[in-house]
Amino acid sequence: MRGVVMHAPGDVRIEDRDDPIVIEPTDAIVRLTHSCICGSDLWPWRGIDEYAWPAPMGHEYAGTVVEVGSDVTTVKPGQFVVGSFFTSDNTCEICRSGYQTSCIRRQGVSGAQAELMRIPLADGTLFATPGIPSPDLIPSLLAASDVLGTGWFGAVAAEAGPGKTVAVVGDGAVGLLAILAAKRLGAERIIAMSRHAERQRLARGFGATDIVEERGDEGVARVKELTGGLGAHSVIEAVGTQEATMQAIRATRPGGHVGYVGVLHGELPANEVFFSHAHLHGGPAPVRRFLPELINLIWNREIDPGKVFDLELPMEQAADGYRAMDERRATKVLLRA
Amino acid sequence: MRGVVMHAPGDVRIEDRDDPIVIEPTDAIVRLTHSCICGSDLWPWRGIDEYAWPAPMGHEYAGTVVEVGSDVTTVKPGQFVVGSFFTSDNTCEICRSGYQTSCIRRQGVSGAQAELMRIPLADGTLFATPGIPSPDLIPSLLAASDVLGTGWFGAVAAEAGPGKTVAVVGDGAVGLLAILAAKRLGAERIIAMSRHAERQRLARGFGATDIVEERGDEGVARVKELTGGLGAHSVIEAVGTQEATMQAIRATRPGGHVGYVGVLHGELPANEVFFSHAHLHGGPAPVRRFLPELINLIWNREIDPGKVFDLELPMEQAADGYRAMDERRATKVLLRA
Repeated sequence: MRGVVMHAPGDVRIEDRDDPIVIEPTDAIVRLTHSCICGSDLWPWRGIDEYAWPAPMGHEYAGTVVEVGSDVTTVKPGQFVVGSFFTSDNTCEICRSGYQTSCIRRQGVSGAQAELMRIPLADGTLFATPGIPSPDLIPSLLAASDVLGTGWFGAVAAEAGPGKTVAVVGDGAVGLLAILAAKRLGAERIIAMSRHAERQRLARGFGATDIVEERGDEGVARVKELTGGLGAHSVIEAVGTQEATMQAIRATRPGGHVGYVGVLHGELPANEVFFSHAHLHGGPAPVRRFLPELINLIWNREIDPGKVFDLELPMEQAADGYRAMDERRATKVLLRA
Repeated sequence: MRGVVMHAPGDVRIEDRDDPIVIEPTDAIVRLTHSCICGSDLWPWRGIDEYAWPAPMGHEYAGTVVEVGSDVTTVKPGQFVVGSFFTSDNTCEICRSGYQTSCIRRQGVSGAQAELMRIPLADGTLFATPGIPSPDLIPSLLAASDVLGTGWFGAVAAEAGPGKTVAVVGDGAVGLLAILAAKRLGAERIIAMSRHAERQRLARGFGATDIVEERGDEGVARVKELTGGLGAHSVIEAVGTQEATMQAIRATRPGGHVGYVGVLHGELPANEVFFSHAHLHGGPAPVRRFLPELINLIWNREIDPGKVFDLELPMEQAADGYRAMDERRATKVLLRA
């Protein structure tokens, strides 16, 4: 099969790789007609995160089961499934409390930018759609695998809800879908922080009521201006840099909630965090917790998170897709196998 | 009047100071028969926090109102009152949401280690006891002003409650009273982290079910051992150093809650915080939120937080008190005016 492999920062190649096979009786093999590039794939691309090279890339996936191990009972060949970027047994105490990405048996998955993929712990990781999806639903189902589930967790972690003013730091796919989530969760007012015209348009389409173009301390001042000087009740951090994280904390009112879903980097000044009086929560989104609900909303066409894909390429041109996202020419790239 | 003034790290003196007078119509003047030394007073004493010297010391107080400004309506001369270390109007949106220590009109108070004290925003800051307390209740009422209210907030922030295993990092007065709070809030199991025999005894008296003597990563390993490998549901951080904070985060299970009430110092590694999946909350305890409930519990002799005072000195010997706490010969020092 063909698959995307990163050999060094900025060096993405499409190669022939061995077809995956069932190794453990809890495995499933899934055929992927589409895959996508994640904002977090840009961390190694930019040389910010250390990786063991060469690295098969991709951790977002939705596709058709082609084979399952002998212990798999909840999904079967022919079904269309969506999974998450960490496997989970979905039965341990941590999974049952809703933190499947910290499952005591979790494994990271990679290699989703390929034609086939092996998913360990298939029963606890995958969730089947009610039937074979129509092709126009594929982008939204693929979004559910990570960026939608992650934005949703950000909104839940920030306790977005009725009566709340929610600010979102970051206008990538996760930030945009956090707006969609905040809207669905009933937020009264949603402030999108973005200076990118096309993303502002998407943000408004997903439910943003206000746009703040300023960044850093000026952005914080503008959010405070819009909230009677107090700051937002809920702020979702969907970037992961230290600067964005502090922007999120500073834009939150005392007693408010920060939900961080951008992979955090750097260090946080503890004394400022202390006196901020903010609630902080986040981490790798336990997407599996939300999949049944999200797939249902997509299936019934109540939400259309697939709109974040604004560039579609054949997988053979994956390197172009990485460049387009790095240069912010594309919000999110869909790859056709 | 006589009062305690710090002139430099380690240099505490008792001096003649001007009697405070009503300046604003919202002020009250309170006579303090007793005051106390706080663990946080040791930060400047040890030269860790910068201060504007000379600094009148003390921010915990309970005493008798002797005079009020013309706008004060809820307390009057002759009443016994307890207040908090930040003043609050108790009417702004932040106060109403329970974060009085981030009141939009807050002012820090200092100079409570003295015979008299001026309290701004008296109506929103002070809470009167049902009558004149019997002398044996004074230590507990004084504890309510900070260490009890702070430990209580730590337990609330860590979401201690029925069915939960709670670990407490720090065996000072705040940590010990966080144990009392966790017990009152219904925690099933309370792990005190302490290697000090006398404090272990107090901890058990307040409700600790387990003692962990190990610190740092060994302490974390021990808490995990006691919790099926997962970590505690709730961990209260009552020290404030970076080491103690990371010990608290590491001892918390994914999805669990850390309540930090030690004044945080240093920097937190953002990536580790992210992947911990912990909920983080804390800051300067909004003691005023809890005062009505805490004073009621003390008045009815349902709790006895005054037990944390294990050394009583005349105020003239305050310097000895600072030394005793710094050297951990005393948990908390009561000063007699």
